[in-house]
Amino acid sequence: MRPLILVTNDDGIVAPGIRALVEVASELGDVVVVAPDSPQSGKGHAITIHDPLRLNKVKVFPGIEAYECSGTPVDCVKIARYVVLKDRTIDLCVSGINHGNNLSISILYSGTLSAAMEGSLEGIRSIGFSLDNYSFDADFEPSKPWVRRVMEHSLAKPFQPGTLLNVNLPNLPADLIRGLKVCRQADDRWVEKFQEGRDPRGQPYYWLGGQYLTMDDGTDTDVWAVKNGYVAVVPAMHDLTNYRAMADLQVLENPAGR
Amino acid sequence: MRPLILVTNDDGIVAPGIRALVEVASELGDVVVVAPDSPQSGKGHAITIHDPLRLNKVKVFPGIEAYECSGTPVDCVKIARYVVLKDRTIDLCVSGINHGNNLSISILYSGTLSAAMEGSLEGIRSIGFSLDNYSFDADFEPSKPWVRRVMEHSLAKPFQPGTLLNVNLPNLPADLIRGLKVCRQADDRWVEKFQEGRDPRGQPYYWLGGQYLTMDDGTDTDVWAVKNGYVAVVPAMHDLTNYRAMADLQVLENPAGR
Repeated sequence: MRPLILVTNDDGIVAPGIRALVEVASELGDVVVVAPDSPQSGKGHAITIHDPLRLNKVKVFPGIEAYECSGTPVDCVKIARYVVLKDRTIDLCVSGINHGNNLSISILYSGTLSAAMEGSLEGIRSIGFSLDNYSFDADFEPSKPWVRRVMEHSLAKPFQPGTLLNVNLPNLPADLIRGLKVCRQADDRWVEKFQEGRDPRGQPYYWLGGQYLTMDDGTDTDVWAVKNGYVAVVPAMHDLTNYRAMADLQVLENPAGR
Repeated sequence: MRPLILVTNDDGIVAPGIRALVEVASELGDVVVVAPDSPQSGKGHAITIHDPLRLNKVKVFPGIEAYECSGTPVDCVKIARYVVLKDRTIDLCVSGINHGNNLSISILYSGTLSAAMEGSLEGIRSIGFSLDNYSFDADFEPSKPWVRRVMEHSLAKPFQPGTLLNVNLPNLPADLIRGLKVCRQADDRWVEKFQEGRDPRGQPYYWLGGQYLTMDDGTDTDVWAVKNGYVAVVPAMHDLTNYRAMADLQVLENPAGR
């Protein structure tokens, strides 16, 4: 039996990046798409609690069962798991291919990666894919063999519990991609700048802009790999505990004089 | 000079929980509040990219500089850092007190904790506080001495880089709180159930509901601590790399036959 592959993203169901991902996935298994009906970049791990969601079957990819959902990427994975595919076992959950990289701490803000994180919480082997090109017209062809290689490996080998893969692809022609590196998440930052202005009614507004700041000069990071022409694969996880910091806090349990 | 303490939350600026936090914080330092103008529960690490934000000075807490912001909790921290307090050094960022716990993987979905995570990314010692009572009328008085103890410790001792604290308070009278435990994040899950219905126009909708599923039977977890009457303190971090999973993936770098 062919594996069942759930495909989602955060750029919305009509983005070219998800089409590329559906094309690769449908070579490897039976594909069901549940993706946002509008762009959901930067939604992180947001879920929709206070409002109902809409879910509509759509014909976007020839021969592929597909649904658009009004929620966030994490909502899409939840509604796929508990409504659309409630009676079937999902073998692989793939998200993307994002238009733009999700390197370093961008994993925290990225709807693409949060969807994969949610898949991993459901015990599904899950992968987020991102191309280092923010343009709508980005060329996803050179990425496809690498996406396929990571997906084939993921279908063949179990993941450690609670682990997902964050895969970033360099924006290069096929012959200039140098290979693949297993990496750690670089410890870089975003420095924000708010555009301040006045709306047509004279009321002030603030619009978030940001600049990426490279701080981590390691050569074992996802940022280094993509900058040097490699596909970066970071195994990520949902246990955020900083075990090394626990000893520093023991004093809180037994403060002096109590 | 008194330390500068930024206070935010995800339940919105008029929630009783943030009032309790402001009261404790103003005993320890100069307080500035930048909090959402509406409930933002479950927003995770979402940021607002495609729309401008609004920021209004408000008089909500007697004698305290306070602003309401139209964005997510993470937006609030960013606009506090880069607009409201751009010329001042923030010594501590505290978020909450959330109406309801943020134990185990709830840290991923919680706006309260994502605000603290964002503070930690800015190099600010940051803490998220949550009370194990979802009610608007929850009693925050018994929590206050514990909130104060954790804040005093945090003002006195530097945090490890990139670390924040996730503090969950049991919903007990003061004399029944047994103490404080430094914990790891429990590895539990949410099992979702969607309420399915029809809107007034006959269109189907799906509304996310969920049930918490205890899977981790460790006695060193945040869930165990709160259930047993302790304040749970989990040091959390933004490096999601699963270092132990890296070896499993080496084969991807050099697949057989290439």
